[in-house]
Amino acid sequence: MSAETLAVESDFFAPRTAIDDLLFAFLTEKAQTAPVPGQSALILMLRDFISGGKRVRPLLCVTGWIAAGGRGDLTQAVRLAASIELAHTCALIHDDIMDASDSRRGRPTVHRALADRHHIPRLAQQYGTGGAILLGDLALVWSDELLHTTPMPDAHRARVLRCVDLARSELIAGQHLDLLTTGRLHASVETMLSIIRYKTAKYTIERPLQVGAALAGAGPDVMNACSAYGIPLGEAFQLRDDILGVFGDPDRTGKSRLDDLREGKCTSLVVHALRVCGPAQAGRLHTLIGDPDIGEREAAEVCSILTSTGARRAVERMIEERYRQALDSLALAPFPADAVRTLKDVAEAVVHRAA
Amino acid sequence: MSAETLAVESDFFAPRTAIDDLLFAFLTEKAQTAPVPGQSALILMLRDFISGGKRVRPLLCVTGWIAAGGRGDLTQAVRLAASIELAHTCALIHDDIMDASDSRRGRPTVHRALADRHHIPRLAQQYGTGGAILLGDLALVWSDELLHTTPMPDAHRARVLRCVDLARSELIAGQHLDLLTTGRLHASVETMLSIIRYKTAKYTIERPLQVGAALAGAGPDVMNACSAYGIPLGEAFQLRDDILGVFGDPDRTGKSRLDDLREGKCTSLVVHALRVCGPAQAGRLHTLIGDPDIGEREAAEVCSILTSTGARRAVERMIEERYRQALDSLALAPFPADAVRTLKDVAEAVVHRAA
Repeated sequence: MSAETLAVESDFFAPRTAIDDLLFAFLTEKAQTAPVPGQSALILMLRDFISGGKRVRPLLCVTGWIAAGGRGDLTQAVRLAASIELAHTCALIHDDIMDASDSRRGRPTVHRALADRHHIPRLAQQYGTGGAILLGDLALVWSDELLHTTPMPDAHRARVLRCVDLARSELIAGQHLDLLTTGRLHASVETMLSIIRYKTAKYTIERPLQVGAALAGAGPDVMNACSAYGIPLGEAFQLRDDILGVFGDPDRTGKSRLDDLREGKCTSLVVHALRVCGPAQAGRLHTLIGDPDIGEREAAEVCSILTSTGARRAVERMIEERYRQALDSLALAPFPADAVRTLKDVAEAVVHRAA
Repeated sequence: MSAETLAVESDFFAPRTAIDDLLFAFLTEKAQTAPVPGQSALILMLRDFISGGKRVRPLLCVTGWIAAGGRGDLTQAVRLAASIELAHTCALIHDDIMDASDSRRGRPTVHRALADRHHIPRLAQQYGTGGAILLGDLALVWSDELLHTTPMPDAHRARVLRCVDLARSELIAGQHLDLLTTGRLHASVETMLSIIRYKTAKYTIERPLQVGAALAGAGPDVMNACSAYGIPLGEAFQLRDDILGVFGDPDRTGKSRLDDLREGKCTSLVVHALRVCGPAQAGRLHTLIGDPDIGEREAAEVCSILTSTGARRAVERMIEERYRQALDSLALAPFPADAVRTLKDVAEAVVHRAA
C-alpha cells in the first residue's frame, strides 16, 4: 500500500511523520547509548531497515484510536503505534531468516547484509543468522519498552496489553502453520485460509485497530466492529500479496517473484490451481514449486498455469468478496464519520495496490 | 547450581514447585487451545524443553521480592518469576541456533529436534531453524503475557517493567558483543569482562533480584544492594561456567565440552592463556579453538595449555575475589535476615557447583 494507490492527502497517512520521527529518534538514542562497543553499528542497521516500511499496522493503530473516539493529542497513540512497528520489524527480520530471503524492500535482508560484512568467510553465514536473530529479538524487546512507557489510563491498560499479546501469539500461530505446510502443496483451502487469517488478517488489520481502540477505552461494540472490518480486509490483503508475489513487478514490490516459488509456499494461488488442474499441470507445479534452483523461465511457466487454471481469477474473486464484506461492515460500525472515511480509503488501497 | 551443591532444604528452592507447576499448567493450556492445527505438538515441545531448567533466575526473582520485604502470599512473585523463565527460554532456544549447538540439558536442542522430525531431508534444517526461531519468539511473547497479567500495585508497575526491559536488552547487548568477538581470540580482558557483565552478571543475578524487589515496591537502597551483590556474583557465575565448559563433566553439565571450543568462544580462560603463553602455545590455541572438526584429543590439548599457562588458576582466583565481594556486600545490604541467609547459600552454590 503506497502513496500511488492511496492519496497521500488521506487522513490515514497524517500520523506517519510523527511515527517515523519517534522511531528514528528512539533508535538513534539507543545507538548513541549502546552499552557495549560495536553494537551501535548494528542498531543503526536496524534503524535503516525500519526506515523502508509502509507503516500499515501503526497507522491502523492510530486509526483504531480515532475510531474509538480518540481526539486531540496524538502523542500516546503514536508511541503505541511505533511499538507495533518495532514488533513487526522483529517479525520481518526473523521471517527473512526462516525463508532464507536475500532481499526485502529492495535491499539486502538483515541476515544477508550482516553475513556480507563479516571478514571470515567460514563464519559469515552463522554470524549473519546469529546477529539477525538478536537484532529481531532486540526490536521486540524495544517494542515492549515503548509499549510499557506509553502513558495510558490504568483502566485501559489491561485491554491494550491483552490485544498486543494476542496479536503477537496469533502471528506466530499463523507462521507455525505456514512452516508446517511449506513443501506440502496439497494443503486444503481451510488450512490456507487459516494461515492467512492468523498470519495476516488478525495481525495486520484487526489487532492493530483494536490496540489503538483499546487505548481510547473502546467497549465491546467498537472492538467487534474492528474485527468485522479487519478480518475480511486482512484476508484480502494477504490474497493480494499472494498475487503480487508471483505476478507483481519486482521493481515495485521490492521482492523477487522467485522467492515465494523457491520456498515452496503453499499460497492461495497454488491451492486453487491444484484443485482444478489435470495431472500434467499438477506434476509441473509439484516439480517447480519448492525447487530452490528455478529461474525466470520456470517462474513464467508457473504463472501461466496459475492463470490458465483460473486460480488467479478465483483469488481475485475472493479479494473482491472480502473487500465488499469489509465495506459493508462499516455501514454498521459505531465509528465516527472521519474514521469510516479513512477505513474506506484503506480498504480501497489494500485491494488495489501494486506494491 | 543444583541440589548437589545447594541443600534442597534451602529456602531458595521452596518456590520451585510453584513456579514449575505454573509453567506446566500455562503451557498445557496453551497447547490445548492452540488456534491452528499442528501447533500443539510444538508447544508441548516447548513445555518439555522448559522442564529441564535450573530456575536460577526465577528463584532469584522470588528471593528479590523477599529481600525487599515481600511476605505472605507468593502468587504474584511466582507469576513474575515464571515470566522471567519463559523469556530465558527464548534466549536459550535462540542461543542454541546461533551457536549451532546440538545438545542442551543432556537432550537435543530445539532446532535439532525439529529438524530430526521433518520428513523431507532437503527442508529439514530450514524447518528446524525456522520452527525454533518461532518457538523462541513465542516463549518471549508468552513471557510478556505472564508479566502483563501479574497483578501488581500501579505504583510499582513502572519499575518492574523497566527492570524487565533492561534485563532483556542488556542480555542482547552482551550476546552481540560475544558474537562480534567470536573467532577473534585476541579480545582484551575488558571486552571479555564486558561480555560477562552484560550476558550473565546483570541478566542472571542482578536484574532478576531487582525485578522481584520492584514488585515489592523496593526503593533505591534495596535496588542498589541487589546490584552490589548481583554483579560480582554474576561474574563469578559466568567464570565458573567458562571453567565447566572445558573442564566440566559432560554427564553433569549436559553439554559437550567440544561446543565452546568449536565455536571459537573467546572465554576468560582463553583470554588469560593468550596473555601469558609463548608463541608455540598461542599458535596451537589459534589453530584449535574455532575449528569445527576438533575432537576429544584436541580438546585435551587445549585443556592442558589452559592449565599449564595458569589460566585456569587465574580464573579460579577471579571467581574467589568476586565471591568475597558478593558476601561482603550482604553485610551492608538492607535485606531482612532470611534473605541474607538465602543469598549466602546462593553465592556458595554459584561458585562451587559442578553443573
